[in-house]
Amino acid sequence: MLKQEDYKQHISERFNTELEEIKTHLLEMGGKVEQQLSAAITALVEGDTAQAESIISRDHEVNQMEMAIDDECATILARRQPAASDLRLVVTVIKVNTDVERIGDEAAKIARQSVRLAEDGMSPTNYIEIRHIGDLVGNMLRKALDAFARLDVKQAVEVIKQDASVDKEYGSALRSLVTFMMEDPRDIGAILNEMWALRSLERIGDHASNIAEHVVYLVRGLDVRHQSFEAVVDQVSDSY
Amino acid sequence: MLKQEDYKQHISERFNTELEEIKTHLLEMGGKVEQQLSAAITALVEGDTAQAESIISRDHEVNQMEMAIDDECATILARRQPAASDLRLVVTVIKVNTDVERIGDEAAKIARQSVRLAEDGMSPTNYIEIRHIGDLVGNMLRKALDAFARLDVKQAVEVIKQDASVDKEYGSALRSLVTFMMEDPRDIGAILNEMWALRSLERIGDHASNIAEHVVYLVRGLDVRHQSFEAVVDQVSDSY
Repeated sequence: MLKQEDYKQHISERFNTELEEIKTHLLEMGGKVEQQLSAAITALVEGDTAQAESIISRDHEVNQMEMAIDDECATILARRQPAASDLRLVVTVIKVNTDVERIGDEAAKIARQSVRLAEDGMSPTNYIEIRHIGDLVGNMLRKALDAFARLDVKQAVEVIKQDASVDKEYGSALRSLVTFMMEDPRDIGAILNEMWALRSLERIGDHASNIAEHVVYLVRGLDVRHQSFEAVVDQVSDSY
Repeated sequence: MLKQEDYKQHISERFNTELEEIKTHLLEMGGKVEQQLSAAITALVEGDTAQAESIISRDHEVNQMEMAIDDECATILARRQPAASDLRLVVTVIKVNTDVERIGDEAAKIARQSVRLAEDGMSPTNYIEIRHIGDLVGNMLRKALDAFARLDVKQAVEVIKQDASVDKEYGSALRSLVTFMMEDPRDIGAILNEMWALRSLERIGDHASNIAEHVVYLVRGLDVRHQSFEAVVDQVSDSY
């Protein structure tokens, strides 16, 4: 006969499994988006239209994952009425889910620019800026997801710090592309396509930084959005 | 003496007040962001740096509102454990809150471009595209917030429809600006600033459309994200 205690424990185990599952699903989606991003950068610098098309066609898989995860979260909130750190996990997953999906969107936008570049003529810049900022941003994304997986505040703070340096590099990359435009106005169209891809990378850096901020909230219960990197460090550095 | 029934009713009234409050606070934030957007467009087309600076300096108020609303939502989830449509309201407010804040961000970005345009020289285009798309997007935002306030699915669907036409107009505006760039490469810098502002307007249209999708979820419990406008109409048109 099932005793009341056993029943409670059974429910609680199932609840823990559900919480683990939303985390796992979000990380799976994150892994997929990482792949999409890295493939999009390769497609762009190599002018590989077939790869770009396949990235664009896979974006809906990310969208489906986003909707499924939101649905799981709503179900947990309704059925389990989580409290304290369990509730923070669910709210964090809802927030991070949006950022991960937007990163997938931006990767698909980069793929679309790469199709345009292959069709209208490649940019004369050799895509040094795209490669460089693409590496930085890919690294930020990997670290942000890893910080979420391991609840690692220190690593999350590093991601927030990196975003400031990406913004600087982005500014100087744009200036260098403007110089190319002025040198030969016939390249304006191609360089604009490259600029839009660069802008997507910069946005991905912002989203990775958002994810990192949500990790700080999840682990510490602190809302560190809209603050300077130094202010964030001040608040969290006491215990890592 | 307070009876059990009175006590329950008292709790339930307070809960309803809290739900009304998060809605009101979100709409207040939406109203503020609408003002920021409309002021940013005026500042840009009139080259009014003082107004642009004041928009930039007020962005932190929107950020504070976002954090306060998220905090209220987390508190309601933890204390009241809402179910059914109450839960959907809280989850919707959490989602819409992010979109409204990002619209505030984009309005501040437009203000920053307007400072650059005033400093580096105005664009030769007369900002016809900015005015036109700015009107469309301002209208979408107003309608999306109004649909949320009145739980009006029909109006929400109109906003989703408008977004497709904004995307088209945005594409043709960009092509027209490229022509200006090629005509006189000395204007490239100024026109790029205008393009970035245009891009922000296009993003604001996307966020307004997101808000409208969340309204459909709130009222109907349907997740209509990542679908064509026609598919959305198919799903919701049976009862409006």
